[in-house]
Amino acid sequence: MTDDVRNILTALSAVPEPWQPHRLASVNDYDVKVVKLDGEFVWHSHPDTDELFLVLSGRLTIQLRDRDVHLGPHDVFVVPRGVEHCPLADGEVQALLIEPQGTVNTGDAGGERTSPLQELG
Amino acid sequence: MTDDVRNILTALSAVPEPWQPHRLASVNDYDVKVVKLDGEFVWHSHPDTDELFLVLSGRLTIQLRDRDVHLGPHDVFVVPRGVEHCPLADGEVQALLIEPQGTVNTGDAGGERTSPLQELG
Repeated sequence: MTDDVRNILTALSAVPEPWQPHRLASVNDYDVKVVKLDGEFVWHSHPDTDELFLVLSGRLTIQLRDRDVHLGPHDVFVVPRGVEHCPLADGEVQALLIEPQGTVNTGDAGGERTSPLQELG
Repeated sequence: MTDDVRNILTALSAVPEPWQPHRLASVNDYDVKVVKLDGEFVWHSHPDTDELFLVLSGRLTIQLRDRDVHLGPHDVFVVPRGVEHCPLADGEVQALLIEPQGTVNTGDAGGERTSPLQELG
């Protein structure tokens, strides 16, 4: 639940680093997160959940094992649960993520790129 | 689950009438819908779920019983479950809705403005 208005662009301007999802709002037990992406992430999957990417600005490739999915502004793509993927941002990309609370950015891969969900100030 | 890329603006251009939510994508058992709003809707609530509004273009007021919430482009607001609300669009508004599958636009009010979820062509 969110009890007031959140502006996506204001929220993104408060995100200091790429690959650190920040909670924008919650709907029941789902979170809508803002995130900046830059460069290549790590291959991982989320065995228990789909993950929605909504690109706001920039060019994002979601690498799958059998193809690349290319996203630009206002494009939406859902990575199905269990499907390995590796985001690759050509320069800075601003995006929204929608997924259940508790979903971790590196999924089943873990490692040093794992970032706990952060709250906006 | 969505197996390909959907562009929000392309999707909205295919929506013929206001107050008819169309499914853009699904994340597990949640839907992300595109909708056009124009004028005043009906007072209603969703007893079992929060409802997220994300405004893409235009000016939307979400009337609550104790205050009005004003939204412009890139603004997000979550109406908590059980809270009576009545959207009021000042001209055409384009928006996304995020809520569990099966959520009906008129909630507990029903009536002639009830629109089944529609699929994009």
